[in-house]
Amino acid sequence: MKLKTVSNALGLVLIGYGIIILSPIVVAVLEKEYTSILPFVVASCCSITLGGLCKWKGGRINNFDSIKRSDGLLVVTLTWLVTALIGAIPYLFYGISPLDAYFESVSGLTTTGATILTDFSLYPKDFFFWRSLSQWLGGMGIIVLFIAILPQFAVAGRRLFFAEAPGPTEEKITPRIAHTAKALWMIYVLLTIAEVLLLYLAGMPLFDAVCNSLSTMAAGGFSPHPQSIMGYGNPSVVWIITFFMFLAGSNFALQYRFLVQLKPKSLLKNDEFMFYVFIVVVLSVALCGFLFFGHDMSLEKSMRDSLFQVVSILTTTGFSSADFALWLVSAQVVLMTVMFVGGCAGSAGGGIKVVRILFVGRYLKREIAQTLHPQAVLPIKIDRTTVPDNIQRQMIGFLLFYVCLLVASGLIVTIIEGDASIGFIGTAATIGNIGPGFGEIGPMGSFGGLAASTKVIFIIDMVVGRLELIPFLVMLHRDFWGVK
Amino acid sequence: MKLKTVSNALGLVLIGYGIIILSPIVVAVLEKEYTSILPFVVASCCSITLGGLCKWKGGRINNFDSIKRSDGLLVVTLTWLVTALIGAIPYLFYGISPLDAYFESVSGLTTTGATILTDFSLYPKDFFFWRSLSQWLGGMGIIVLFIAILPQFAVAGRRLFFAEAPGPTEEKITPRIAHTAKALWMIYVLLTIAEVLLLYLAGMPLFDAVCNSLSTMAAGGFSPHPQSIMGYGNPSVVWIITFFMFLAGSNFALQYRFLVQLKPKSLLKNDEFMFYVFIVVVLSVALCGFLFFGHDMSLEKSMRDSLFQVVSILTTTGFSSADFALWLVSAQVVLMTVMFVGGCAGSAGGGIKVVRILFVGRYLKREIAQTLHPQAVLPIKIDRTTVPDNIQRQMIGFLLFYVCLLVASGLIVTIIEGDASIGFIGTAATIGNIGPGFGEIGPMGSFGGLAASTKVIFIIDMVVGRLELIPFLVMLHRDFWGVK
Ligand SMILES: [K+]
Ligand SMILES: [K+]
Repeated sequence: MKLKTVSNALGLVLIGYGIIILSPIVVAVLEKEYTSILPFVVASCCSITLGGLCKWKGGRINNFDSIKRSDGLLVVTLTWLVTALIGAIPYLFYGISPLDAYFESVSGLTTTGATILTDFSLYPKDFFFWRSLSQWLGGMGIIVLFIAILPQFAVAGRRLFFAEAPGPTEEKITPRIAHTAKALWMIYVLLTIAEVLLLYLAGMPLFDAVCNSLSTMAAGGFSPHPQSIMGYGNPSVVWIITFFMFLAGSNFALQYRFLVQLKPKSLLKNDEFMFYVFIVVVLSVALCGFLFFGHDMSLEKSMRDSLFQVVSILTTTGFSSADFALWLVSAQVVLMTVMFVGGCAGSAGGGIKVVRILFVGRYLKREIAQTLHPQAVLPIKIDRTTVPDNIQRQMIGFLLFYVCLLVASGLIVTIIEGDASIGFIGTAATIGNIGPGFGEIGPMGSFGGLAASTKVIFIIDMVVGRLELIPFLVMLHRDFWGVK
Repeated sequence: MKLKTVSNALGLVLIGYGIIILSPIVVAVLEKEYTSILPFVVASCCSITLGGLCKWKGGRINNFDSIKRSDGLLVVTLTWLVTALIGAIPYLFYGISPLDAYFESVSGLTTTGATILTDFSLYPKDFFFWRSLSQWLGGMGIIVLFIAILPQFAVAGRRLFFAEAPGPTEEKITPRIAHTAKALWMIYVLLTIAEVLLLYLAGMPLFDAVCNSLSTMAAGGFSPHPQSIMGYGNPSVVWIITFFMFLAGSNFALQYRFLVQLKPKSLLKNDEFMFYVFIVVVLSVALCGFLFFGHDMSLEKSMRDSLFQVVSILTTTGFSSADFALWLVSAQVVLMTVMFVGGCAGSAGGGIKVVRILFVGRYLKREIAQTLHPQAVLPIKIDRTTVPDNIQRQMIGFLLFYVCLLVASGLIVTIIEGDASIGFIGTAATIGNIGPGFGEIGPMGSFGGLAASTKVIFIIDMVVGRLELIPFLVMLHRDFWGVK
């Protein structure tokens, strides 16, 4: 454990974050909400002071090439926990309790989008801008982390899916990360701007267009409207957001190859992307059937709402174009199914991820064949490449952990709330970074009425789910803290 | 696929079953229920005729040593499906519909114990004797299958846990199976007789003592009393049945070493048994706390009911000493937790099995250490023996299949019944061969009111769960049916 390296890296992040957190002041000035300037100045000062302190403690280090895997994971975890703490400071100024403020801030930075708010009319525009911006930052952070940084640490089998990144011997880690991160930022920013423009042209007020776009690209789901996307009552808006949610839930490394390197075939050759499309199509059709035949809904509205809702939950965005808590149980079950998949690896979406579901399918198919032919050597292939044993092991480890955490958190919350639906759906919605669940915590509901202990558990679920479990679990091992 | 071998083996089973199915006639005569003779005579004739036909079609084969793995699995599956069909015949004579009769018969032979009955007063004693006897036969069948037969086929990692069976080179398969099966039968019969005697001495009517004992040793859970064990209102009975359920849920190969070979230390050296004891103790204490503090219950009754209920659900017996559907949610959650464990491997209990849960724990612990030390070779050990890679693969395959089946069946039943609780709890209770769930299908409830399609799905769940998935899944592969 090199505490100096950790402190230095964290300090850098906090100073940058402290500058970015000043940006809501622009909105405050434009909207003439001058009382909203102070909260962000205070938060910024805290962040920069803390960051400066960390950098000072860490001494002079400009090269993170030699950072140890365990130190890297510690930096990642601390980054999410501490930035969420600082991001909660502005909320305190609007009369929100510390626990609720931290919940809302974690929900933002982890791109979960579960809210403790009940009455949206109490807060100024700046407040909602910061909610959406925190999601946008969190989403970008995750994409850079999963595509550019973590594959270098060979965690959770990620190296396999981003093989185009040059191997560790060719280039130093720091410049490579910087290069990849820059390309990803570019796509992310351009898509966000495109969505803002389209939403504005479709008739959404500019402020709402900006906030909703920030939340969309992060697969976040916070909306300035208390009724989410349903509240705008605008079919074009629903279609536009469906399209951008779909992009946000796909792999950004793949988008880079498609949009920047102009390799259109890369989509068709990507097993995960094709499976992602397959899930969207099949489940939208099923849901559309339930809505069209089960509810008195027009075909166009059935199609629009089913596609929107399947994409929204699959990508773990969590926007709603309808109050699906009022739908038939059968229709809700389709959405519940999707809750357990999640976006593509390399997107800002949470959950188990499409590629891991695909892996499970192929693992089980192999297992059946292996039972019949015990001596045969049957590899599992994804994208025409054999998945190596250690990557298989890491993926299975992730899946088993995910199920264990889901069950454990679900059972504990069920005991606290006395309601298995809140326990398990709430856990699935927070670990998977989806946001709204069903019933009381559904799309038009709020997490504000839950017990304090439930909120603490859901905060843990959100962060652990967001960082894909491994950094946390590793910290439970004594070797992590042990003397080198 | 050697259809002749399959046909021959199935014929043998059916002829034996046809003789055993006559035994309820003894009860009919003793109880002077002469109208109950016909149903069993008819069932017996069907079984023997069908069995004779199969044997005749199969030709002369006396040696099953060369049976192929796929043929063996087919025999096993057909045995459960067909004997359940014949076992359903007597129920038809009491005015039960064909689907319900098959449900009840499958529930008996798979030792699930979920019932479609609502009014127990409609049926004679013989009817209840057959219900319990079918469980006892099914339980014995499973123990012999899992300890003596399946390890020879190296399915689902079972070979590892019954290593004391001599290796395939030393002895032909048929005599070895016969020898092991005989030893297991002996223990099973002796324990059943001991339980009958103790229950009778504790004041239970002899007929009820016999039926409940047959159901106990099979971890079955059918009781002739509509209120299960609670209906006898006798604390001693509760304690006695707790003890025998505990034995029924432990590994019979281990019991053999302990009781017959007199190796008492074998218990302490067995990781699964120690973990089984650990789960019972910890969860009973937790449940006892919830009952004592949450309900106005005496300490003795809290202890009695908590131990009984934890052991009953853990071993997947499903008896109830109290209507736990009326307990606090927290208390019910403890039982729900236990539902996902199941008995020990080599018992008649269903579910995931204690050893596999233990394996998951050690797999995850290893995975954390491996993330910190990517180059280290870290074996997973059970009973001080390294679990080989192919056995690990089989266990993980089983676990992933189990979760997938649970989710798929749970979602479909939720759509059919419009109730997620029936969907998921009902699926867990049937795949795990537990029997009663919570709510409408709770310990004092009935599966009789469910939709026909739900019953069909639960029938599949019971059989697939009982045979530990693999035989069924293998049949989905075209190579299974292919030309050798
Ligand atoms: K979300
Ligand atoms: K049972």
